[in-house]
Amino acid sequence: MPTANRQLILRSRPKGLLAPGDLELVQTPLPTIQDGQALAKVKYLSVDPTMRVWMAHDTYLPAVAIAEVMRAAGFAEVVESRHKDFKKGDKVVGLTGMQEYCILDPAGKRSSFRKVPPIPFLSDTAFLGVLGINGITAYFGMMDIAKPQNGETLVVSAAAGATGSIAGQIGKIHGCRVVGIAGGPEKCKWITEELGFDAAIDYKQPDWKEKLATATPKGIDIDFENVGGEIMHEVLERMNLHGRVVLCGLISGYTKGDPALESFAKVLVKRLRVQGFIVMDYMDRYMEAATQLGKWKMFGKLKDRETIVEGLEKAPDAINMLFTGGNIGKLIVKV
Amino acid sequence: MPTANRQLILRSRPKGLLAPGDLELVQTPLPTIQDGQALAKVKYLSVDPTMRVWMAHDTYLPAVAIAEVMRAAGFAEVVESRHKDFKKGDKVVGLTGMQEYCILDPAGKRSSFRKVPPIPFLSDTAFLGVLGINGITAYFGMMDIAKPQNGETLVVSAAAGATGSIAGQIGKIHGCRVVGIAGGPEKCKWITEELGFDAAIDYKQPDWKEKLATATPKGIDIDFENVGGEIMHEVLERMNLHGRVVLCGLISGYTKGDPALESFAKVLVKRLRVQGFIVMDYMDRYMEAATQLGKWKMFGKLKDRETIVEGLEKAPDAINMLFTGGNIGKLIVKV
Repeated sequence: MPTANRQLILRSRPKGLLAPGDLELVQTPLPTIQDGQALAKVKYLSVDPTMRVWMAHDTYLPAVAIAEVMRAAGFAEVVESRHKDFKKGDKVVGLTGMQEYCILDPAGKRSSFRKVPPIPFLSDTAFLGVLGINGITAYFGMMDIAKPQNGETLVVSAAAGATGSIAGQIGKIHGCRVVGIAGGPEKCKWITEELGFDAAIDYKQPDWKEKLATATPKGIDIDFENVGGEIMHEVLERMNLHGRVVLCGLISGYTKGDPALESFAKVLVKRLRVQGFIVMDYMDRYMEAATQLGKWKMFGKLKDRETIVEGLEKAPDAINMLFTGGNIGKLIVKV
Repeated sequence: MPTANRQLILRSRPKGLLAPGDLELVQTPLPTIQDGQALAKVKYLSVDPTMRVWMAHDTYLPAVAIAEVMRAAGFAEVVESRHKDFKKGDKVVGLTGMQEYCILDPAGKRSSFRKVPPIPFLSDTAFLGVLGINGITAYFGMMDIAKPQNGETLVVSAAAGATGSIAGQIGKIHGCRVVGIAGGPEKCKWITEELGFDAAIDYKQPDWKEKLATATPKGIDIDFENVGGEIMHEVLERMNLHGRVVLCGLISGYTKGDPALESFAKVLVKRLRVQGFIVMDYMDRYMEAATQLGKWKMFGKLKDRETIVEGLEKAPDAINMLFTGGNIGKLIVKV
């Protein structure tokens, strides 16, 4: 049994990409376990874009504190246990942190550990990827939010990434036309030739926007968004009416400035539902609304006020009033 | 019976606010009706922010063409009819256009007309406001999208406008704490003292952001968004997890540049649903996903690929690989 642990400690919050010294490798004594704890040797660490956000500021989880072990999901094997649920040799996944040994303390703050069953056809690392956080993300993002229908067009950004590559395949399983956006020919080849995506768009090519248009002749019904920025803008441009956007990641912003300042980042982190809305879609239900509104108005629960401008010739000025704050309540031109 | 019509014709697409000459008032001969048509005298015109968008470019409706009568909803009275559904004296609402007389041709392109019943307590103009497009917008935006729950906090921007003032009152009817954002003391006084909003924030005051925070001590559950830009950003900052944003208008952008270029404008116009998503919320359903993913993988429907970096000391470089496009599939550090 070794007596030392090695850990990566957060020393400074990165600006842009990580610089040497932002994470420092240190040697510390092997922790000793107490009743109700277990010690596990970390075999594999998952590397995910969200780690860059954890290093920067509070979002859906508090930022990693300076001088703390860098947060990471990992696969570990129990080497010593005084915990009733874990025994030596158990394999677990959870937030191990970036270190060689971690303490499993399901009663305390490290309650994220889950035992993994030995499944013959699955490698240990599969529990960090396809059956880990990325697979689960792709699964619920597609099945609970996107709800893909046969014949729809799905676009996935960061399509050769751990999450995007699975999200796209789930789209194929459900009969979608799947177009992936990725950087470089090797990634594009992998997602089309091996994963079965219908098309791949290499965003490093100057004509990628035209190629995206060609690859989505019927528009786009679902955007599984991992990137944000210009790529998302272009995908939104080609979305069909009433399309769904699974806002899963905005990696294009993570190394530039503070993504929490951007509205879409707030939508993501707070898991908001933003529904674009134009009343035209509801006009066949006009009477339902008018009846209820009329009742509320009759019983004094709804008040209204009008600003009436007289004369057709005043109509252009009336339109401008809306933008200069000149009216209260409903603005009407009396012809 | 007069022999002339007066119309406002779109002559040029405005830059910023409407300038003199963008809409030109012209006199034209009174149109003569044919079988299946009716002629109506326009009494009132509705003035709505979306008109500025119609003047600029195609969105959910085609832009008004240059030299055409400016599009507008209006209230009109039939003065002559050769249409079986309309008789002289009938009152109608629909897209009359900005003119004194319009033709009702429900079989043709002006199929938007709806007869309004004589209801004692309702004025003619109510059919353009509280029971018109604004009331209907507020109703479905609140009832179908926001689904307000007792005790929730609703924020409405452009709260003293025709739609916002009704949306806020519908929130009050459903037991919400309702905070309106409006410009100037008169509007703020109206929405609190007469409409019963719990608080009004005057965005023209320098400390409006602090006042918004004070007025929403439990955060914000629903944003009925009519404005966009800085006001929306600040509201999103205070949204609670899993909040709902009814994206109804982005008036702050309509007179500046092309709103279709902005991502939120695309979300609005295409009626997209954008759902921010973090997989943590689904972790109690892990087994559901893992079981299905495992089956798909076992039957070859799901493929994955790993990029494995060896050595804990390489972990910082591995994080950077995500942002420089260095990995394909799942990125893992072998400790």
